[in-house]
Amino acid sequence: MNSFGRIFRLTSFGESHGAAIGGVIDGCPAGVPIDIELIQQDLDRRKPGQSHITTSRQEADRVELLSGIFEGTTTGTPIGFVIRNKDQHSADYSNIKDLYRPSHADFTYDQKYGVRDYRGGGRSSARETIARVVAGSIAKQMLATQGVKIQAFVSRVGEVELEKNYQELDLGLTETNLVRCPDPETAAKMIARIEDAGRNHDTVGGVISGIATGIPAGWGEPVFNKLHADLGFAMLGINAVKGFEYGSGFSGTRLAGSEHNDEFVPGENGIRTLTNHSGGIQGGISNGEDVYWKVAFKPIATLLKEQNTVDVYGNAAVINVQGRHDPCVLPRAVPIVEAMAALVLADHFLLSRVSKL
Amino acid sequence: MNSFGRIFRLTSFGESHGAAIGGVIDGCPAGVPIDIELIQQDLDRRKPGQSHITTSRQEADRVELLSGIFEGTTTGTPIGFVIRNKDQHSADYSNIKDLYRPSHADFTYDQKYGVRDYRGGGRSSARETIARVVAGSIAKQMLATQGVKIQAFVSRVGEVELEKNYQELDLGLTETNLVRCPDPETAAKMIARIEDAGRNHDTVGGVISGIATGIPAGWGEPVFNKLHADLGFAMLGINAVKGFEYGSGFSGTRLAGSEHNDEFVPGENGIRTLTNHSGGIQGGISNGEDVYWKVAFKPIATLLKEQNTVDVYGNAAVINVQGRHDPCVLPRAVPIVEAMAALVLADHFLLSRVSKL
Amino acid sequence: MNSFGRIFRLTSFGESHGAAIGGVIDGCPAGVPIDIELIQQDLDRRKPGQSHITTSRQEADRVELLSGIFEGTTTGTPIGFVIRNKDQHSADYSNIKDLYRPSHADFTYDQKYGVRDYRGGGRSSARETIARVVAGSIAKQMLATQGVKIQAFVSRVGEVELEKNYQELDLGLTETNLVRCPDPETAAKMIARIEDAGRNHDTVGGVISGIATGIPAGWGEPVFNKLHADLGFAMLGINAVKGFEYGSGFSGTRLAGSEHNDEFVPGENGIRTLTNHSGGIQGGISNGEDVYWKVAFKPIATLLKEQNTVDVYGNAAVINVQGRHDPCVLPRAVPIVEAMAALVLADHFLLSRVSKL
Amino acid sequence: MNSFGRIFRLTSFGESHGAAIGGVIDGCPAGVPIDIELIQQDLDRRKPGQSHITTSRQEADRVELLSGIFEGTTTGTPIGFVIRNKDQHSADYSNIKDLYRPSHADFTYDQKYGVRDYRGGGRSSARETIARVVAGSIAKQMLATQGVKIQAFVSRVGEVELEKNYQELDLGLTETNLVRCPDPETAAKMIARIEDAGRNHDTVGGVISGIATGIPAGWGEPVFNKLHADLGFAMLGINAVKGFEYGSGFSGTRLAGSEHNDEFVPGENGIRTLTNHSGGIQGGISNGEDVYWKVAFKPIATLLKEQNTVDVYGNAAVINVQGRHDPCVLPRAVPIVEAMAALVLADHFLLSRVSKL
Repeated sequence: MNSFGRIFRLTSFGESHGAAIGGVIDGCPAGVPIDIELIQQDLDRRKPGQSHITTSRQEADRVELLSGIFEGTTTGTPIGFVIRNKDQHSADYSNIKDLYRPSHADFTYDQKYGVRDYRGGGRSSARETIARVVAGSIAKQMLATQGVKIQAFVSRVGEVELEKNYQELDLGLTETNLVRCPDPETAAKMIARIEDAGRNHDTVGGVISGIATGIPAGWGEPVFNKLHADLGFAMLGINAVKGFEYGSGFSGTRLAGSEHNDEFVPGENGIRTLTNHSGGIQGGISNGEDVYWKVAFKPIATLLKEQNTVDVYGNAAVINVQGRHDPCVLPRAVPIVEAMAALVLADHFLLSRVSKL
Repeated sequence: MNSFGRIFRLTSFGESHGAAIGGVIDGCPAGVPIDIELIQQDLDRRKPGQSHITTSRQEADRVELLSGIFEGTTTGTPIGFVIRNKDQHSADYSNIKDLYRPSHADFTYDQKYGVRDYRGGGRSSARETIARVVAGSIAKQMLATQGVKIQAFVSRVGEVELEKNYQELDLGLTETNLVRCPDPETAAKMIARIEDAGRNHDTVGGVISGIATGIPAGWGEPVFNKLHADLGFAMLGINAVKGFEYGSGFSGTRLAGSEHNDEFVPGENGIRTLTNHSGGIQGGISNGEDVYWKVAFKPIATLLKEQNTVDVYGNAAVINVQGRHDPCVLPRAVPIVEAMAALVLADHFLLSRVSKL
Repeated sequence: MNSFGRIFRLTSFGESHGAAIGGVIDGCPAGVPIDIELIQQDLDRRKPGQSHITTSRQEADRVELLSGIFEGTTTGTPIGFVIRNKDQHSADYSNIKDLYRPSHADFTYDQKYGVRDYRGGGRSSARETIARVVAGSIAKQMLATQGVKIQAFVSRVGEVELEKNYQELDLGLTETNLVRCPDPETAAKMIARIEDAGRNHDTVGGVISGIATGIPAGWGEPVFNKLHADLGFAMLGINAVKGFEYGSGFSGTRLAGSEHNDEFVPGENGIRTLTNHSGGIQGGISNGEDVYWKVAFKPIATLLKEQNTVDVYGNAAVINVQGRHDPCVLPRAVPIVEAMAALVLADHFLLSRVSKL
Repeated sequence: MNSFGRIFRLTSFGESHGAAIGGVIDGCPAGVPIDIELIQQDLDRRKPGQSHITTSRQEADRVELLSGIFEGTTTGTPIGFVIRNKDQHSADYSNIKDLYRPSHADFTYDQKYGVRDYRGGGRSSARETIARVVAGSIAKQMLATQGVKIQAFVSRVGEVELEKNYQELDLGLTETNLVRCPDPETAAKMIARIEDAGRNHDTVGGVISGIATGIPAGWGEPVFNKLHADLGFAMLGINAVKGFEYGSGFSGTRLAGSEHNDEFVPGENGIRTLTNHSGGIQGGISNGEDVYWKVAFKPIATLLKEQNTVDVYGNAAVINVQGRHDPCVLPRAVPIVEAMAALVLADHFLLSRVSKL
């Protein structure tokens, strides 16, 4: 249950305060040119300590590729990789070893497994997403050979919302500010909102938007594995995610069918739609238009504030978490959203090769 | 790609105008008492022609169980079943054989497969969900032996919203009205809204809410297969679904972490939480509280109105769909939401048996 | 655990004395022309009552295809099918309901599941292989479009052995005699051997050989899913099978490496090998030469003789099985061997499409 | 396609001359005490250079466990591990970079993938089995908690055969000689036979026998995943394996049914069988008796002799492999046979927990 995908398939391992985070990418076809620097760039976008609005923990997070790549190209054999854990202050956790942090996975892990690596959340830590970013970056490189591009950005922090559609934005600006919002004005407000949360020893949630362009018509499966169902599954598997919508989403349910339907029109390079409420997916299969979606992130549960809770024996207790934590997960989650989308699309690209004789 | 689940696993088959819809349920443990009448009740909640606010098509949809049940009890072997298709007016579709219906799967199926059963949407028809309702009903019967109960209801139609929380409602009232909303007053407004859409030859969307009670702490998987990720995947695989959220959902992202966290408290029968923004799931694993979620359904794409589109040769065309269609999918989708949730929970119940030695 | 294959995937259901045997073939690509008569021919080769050396039970075994095929061609959607059970004398089994037949699955099923359909072996009956023959026949038809052909024949019955290599035989003669041995002289001896067993109310085992031609180099997977590992897995899943070998097999282990190695030579249409001890597979992947293998079948456990055994309460008992049974499973198992090989090769054909970019 | 198992699941990675061999064990339940020394002992039984009848390559092969184990016990989370490659003489292979070694995977890998890590066989090297030995050792430790024990030994080298049944042997003697045959007299002859092969710059094959004791009745699946089918699949996935049989195997097919059937008898601790031609498995499910099987290994293809072959351009060539190689794979394959059997049984142990309500 630590694998993702059917053909292009990531198996992930590792706890936050164990020796390493790592994984195996199985099913990546031979012949994909791999630039390890691009992987590192995505890891750097995810890493802590990258700015004053993220945690000040310093984790270099350098990936070591152990197999499956020979002379710069994938060989079709599994790609094993590890990222060593460093600068892990396990001692920070000894005082909360017997306490259940509210809205964390401590209690539920104990219920499921009976034992638990209590240091920093163990397997439930968002450090695990490092493995996803590595695999997603390799998936992106494969998808790039097909003209497919995936971009995510922060579209809301608390109440601060980016009001524009993605078509009105220059997504090239996403990486020009700390919060990863492609609209500089909104970005500034978002940063202020996060600073405010940090000052209050509190946390703030929000929304990340994702867009995939260049997907040809015909990717996806008709019934359970609709392209958007796999995308939603991928997004909901990211830590702190509470919701997913694609295309017209929840608000589209308020339209009449006659307003919502996307009229087909003849296009220069084939059939197109006039509008795109469908979010590029009809009947679970891509139609050649842009695929876009939104992901809701709750405010992080780790607060630098006193909270009421219980201990592992079921007695009322007070918890006071120490350490270096993010007031807002969204800026660092942008590459994770992209990575998970890339894994889904890589898989469906390969599945599309076996749909007809 | 037509299977759902890992241990408790449904494989579905069938097109709307082929001989039958059916499936195989593999991995249902031996010893589950099965009441076929309960399956039929769920099918009857899904079937067309059940009221004046659904399509007037008459489909009896009687399930035949072919294997895996002996003397009223599951034997642990696969449960095969079929539901014969009847009253299918294939001729209704001959005039649209060469046209792509807007926001339908006609175009994308052709792109993926090169061929297509054009009668009534073929495999993309919502008739396929019959197989899910059968399997889900068997899953519900297994879950009932564990004290787990799943209930869904319509909570919004267009702009008509049920403002109460599920705790304030008597869910026993859900089946007392045509629209399956447990609040009679709101139900009446929803029915009027659907009648209105029908009169305009248009369609209307909305939201279905689901609740599962009685789930013990410890069900779910930590990373990709978080309980809510599997639930979301299940919901997003239902026809016409555009979004999913659980617990505090999209609106919870506007709260501060200190407001959003669920305080643990000692309870009579173990550890409980004071609030339940977590929706009964923490770190992907159930914590013993109620699991609840919402599903967004777009307005149905089949309109009894003239629409612009293209034909299969890429030329502009006008389409005029005939036949008997629903103005609103939501009332009939309630048992489908329950069924898909039941499949997810059945699987996680079995997975929970192998998490510790 | 009732599914076989990864992309081209059969899920089977049904008990011998239930309503039907059936299955779902998922992952068959769109565009394969299907001749239902070829499926029926394979079923007829498997069916009981086909000659005086098989059981005299009459089972027509007519397949009904329920989905996934439209206007004579696969559509890429799952192919559901059923074969109704008829002429099942359930009453034959009432007297052995509480007895464990020696070397049958009665005892082990009870241990695993706690309940059991005791009529005719239930799910453990070889009637289940009907589903495999149907799916295998469809796989064969897909493979035929790629020039791949699979043929099996009986090469030993008891001590009566076919001494020739498959290259010295005219495999076109296989279907010209009741025992399905392509050498008429040996066939006559085999038939006499089976008649002898029948007269003694006893049973006899033997070996079936299989050959697949036309497989291009490059099918198979390097590690766990070596082409021969998947073939062996497929064969060992057939009822009554006790062993599997491919290429030089057990006897090849007596050769020196220098005798066993297959020398590469330049060929007109690419690289060939001078000998073929490798059985067409090197490192788990096909090399373009013929793939061949052998399967050991034990003598059937159902004897029309008195035998000592125990009852379900653990007491010593005597069993006396009645009914119409085969003295030798081999003639009817030939199409099953072919079917299972076809499923394996169909899957690897599709997997070969995703091994390089 | 580099994963093995359904619940207890190994995913393996690594090439012989890459950075490392490693893997991830997913699905190992929480609460299994792990002794890393036992893993190392199994690795030492597999490692090269352990005696004068194996290759003189020195590979320390020390495993590093990276996750999933906390304070000496499994936590239920995935167990990642790596074994660094050392003492790899990549230069030994530069002269055969453009040649296809006879009966090796060089040619078929190129056909499948288009590219290939030519150093020492890359992924097709038996070094990959290190990952299996690590995972198998962990599986053995879990099975030991259930009273299940797996032992393998060499039962034939070339023509030198161990004539006794496993019941007549003291399996405790297996590790007392270099060839791992529990009969000292036969072991001496086997060693002489291997020395002889080595002197001739040739290689020799043979047979390994395996036995699993302590398996309760009820493990296994009825149709495709019969316990022996999974065992056979596991064995046939080991490098150089050409055949598999269990219980009475190929020779049992020469018995009459009345000789072959295993009579049930009442036993002190439940139902037993008088004989065990069934090899402890009936209808694919364990019956509580010993499970035993045999595996055929071909003579290793790597000869220190001149051989005719072709180059990658299809031209005739002569190959002269250098380096340090085993004249006989069998002594070092004993722990691999045990490991693969352990993986199968671990999986079926967990599956047995979900077969009844």
